Amino acid sequence: MADPINPADMACPMPLNKHDRVLLAHGGGGTLMRDLIRNVFAKTFARDGYTAEHDAARLTMPKGDLAFTTDSYVISPLFFPGGDIGSLAVHGTVNDLAMAGAKPLYLSAGFILEEGLEMAVLERVVASMRAAADAADVVLVTGDTKVVNRGKGDGLYINTAGIGVVPDGIRVGPERIESGDAILVSGDVGRHGLTILATRNELGFQSDLASDSAPVAVAVKALLDSGVEVHCLRDLTRGGLAAALCELAESSRLHFDVEQERVPVLDTTRALGELLGIDPIHVANEGRFVVMVPERQADKALEVLRAVDVSAGAVRVGTVNDQRQPGTVSLLTPYGVRHQLALLSGEQLPRIC
Amino acid sequence: MADPINPADMACPMPLNKHDRVLLAHGGGGTLMRDLIRNVFAKTFARDGYTAEHDAARLTMPKGDLAFTTDSYVISPLFFPGGDIGSLAVHGTVNDLAMAGAKPLYLSAGFILEEGLEMAVLERVVASMRAAADAADVVLVTGDTKVVNRGKGDGLYINTAGIGVVPDGIRVGPERIESGDAILVSGDVGRHGLTILATRNELGFQSDLASDSAPVAVAVKALLDSGVEVHCLRDLTRGGLAAALCELAESSRLHFDVEQERVPVLDTTRALGELLGIDPIHVANEGRFVVMVPERQADKALEVLRAVDVSAGAVRVGTVNDQRQPGTVSLLTPYGVRHQLALLSGEQLPRIC
Repeated sequence: MADPINPADMACPMPLNKHDRVLLAHGGGGTLMRDLIRNVFAKTFARDGYTAEHDAARLTMPKGDLAFTTDSYVISPLFFPGGDIGSLAVHGTVNDLAMAGAKPLYLSAGFILEEGLEMAVLERVVASMRAAADAADVVLVTGDTKVVNRGKGDGLYINTAGIGVVPDGIRVGPERIESGDAILVSGDVGRHGLTILATRNELGFQSDLASDSAPVAVAVKALLDSGVEVHCLRDLTRGGLAAALCELAESSRLHFDVEQERVPVLDTTRALGELLGIDPIHVANEGRFVVMVPERQADKALEVLRAVDVSAGAVRVGTVNDQRQPGTVSLLTPYGVRHQLALLSGEQLPRIC
Repeated sequence: MADPINPADMACPMPLNKHDRVLLAHGGGGTLMRDLIRNVFAKTFARDGYTAEHDAARLTMPKGDLAFTTDSYVISPLFFPGGDIGSLAVHGTVNDLAMAGAKPLYLSAGFILEEGLEMAVLERVVASMRAAADAADVVLVTGDTKVVNRGKGDGLYINTAGIGVVPDGIRVGPERIESGDAILVSGDVGRHGLTILATRNELGFQSDLASDSAPVAVAVKALLDSGVEVHCLRDLTRGGLAAALCELAESSRLHFDVEQERVPVLDTTRALGELLGIDPIHVANEGRFVVMVPERQADKALEVLRAVDVSAGAVRVGTVNDQRQPGTVSLLTPYGVRHQLALLSGEQLPRIC
């Protein structure tokens, strides 16, 4: 397969082993793959423990249970206001660990590259992953690269798996939700998904919205360290706040009352949502979560959350009760009407994460 | 998005929530995704610890260091003699853990599904993963599903990440290879890659070759338990035996002498390789590995390996020495000629794993 030549090469020839696009051979196990791993991945992720040339990373773990999670990222477009597929692939996975009450420690990264991807795009994404990992205080320790034929991918897809440690004595989950618990949301909702929609060229919207994509473990840690008895945590990704609440109500077999007016939504988010007929409560976020705490600790929990940047906009949106239909969520409108909040069947927005 | 209807549905209507092809909405975070997760993934992987409805799995680990690895699988075709993308996605990752001297324990699975994929194909692959995980004695504990638009994938891609535990006192790696070590190979080479090539329709070959895809941890465990001082292990995936040896020679800064005649290759593999001008020594395997042990323990190691099914064909192929150019591999032909074995730049066969 020939190396595509661009005009810059002619003026100042590049060495033969330098390619400006991904070739199928970059996934083949030969010198091209070795060079890609060394020059793009290992160079960027270099740090004690990164195993460019080994089959598996060897890690020493602190005491406690292990949390383990995985997510693939297929977002389109690859770059958007507030982030890109690389930062998202770090935030999404470290946030899943945080939702288990874990301190995120290690990430793996599996890249599926489409033949023809510009090497500069890959380098930009990988640099963004490194910056996001550093900011989230996790180490990317092992990786894998595959190349698929042109037309069998969409630039690049990334899978990250994450390992964290759950401190002894910490247990959070839907089974711990109790009647009377306060339901808190860590900030305004709907921004990530609507930003992606606004960014997609074919829709031609212009707005100043930016994704909320961010690592939230620091907020969770502050909450756990403060002595607040955290019953449950859930990040508000695909399906948004609505899906998270419906799933938790169902798992806990309790009823949630949520006051629509209290759900924080930025004016720009709301305006764009209204224009498109999409309720931000159903839209994916990447730096937001819901937390259930005992009523008596609700104010303290809010105070702790608000002191951390990523959850500065935390508010209480509702209460858990056992007096109404278990497994469902009521949305109370400002006019005193009670709607049952339902999971949509699919969603309005494919490939927002 | 409409559910495609096939003639079978008309004769005997399926419930509305039953779909025979993957829709974009199956990745959307709503009821369709919930049903897919419940009916396909959770049902198949159900076992203590599988967290269909949580953000991360919580795991208790035995004592020892942790091994952590990831691989994406983009093989085409999805089904081939001796395996499929599902069994491969288990074998490849548990083998990477075994190569670190670890006992494989837990897997994650990230699915990237192309819109329109037949649900029956997905179910078959997922069932194969479960069977492979059971056979390899690992538990698939967490997963993720994304759906990409038609034409932006190739049926399905799978990423698995794996966690294993390295028993105290075990350390294997290229840094432990010593001059004088015997170089053993666990069985015949080149079968996986040439099977895939023979299976690809466009090439129209017919043969009785089958992939060697298999979990090898049991062979590694037998070796470690036997008291053989294992210096290094490496599986022979992309780039085959040649790439594994070149990389290890380079990492260890030693020279490897390999006798071409001793490298085990089945007659069918060799014939197909000759027909295509592909040397099986450069072709990927999925159930083969190379192991370096001290000269004095070479016979014992072979005896132990041969007693285990997956490595019954183990043989010695060469010796490590420090008298020749460090970082390179010599292939000694039956005619007494010494060739330097080189990494190919890409490979002859894209998407064989």
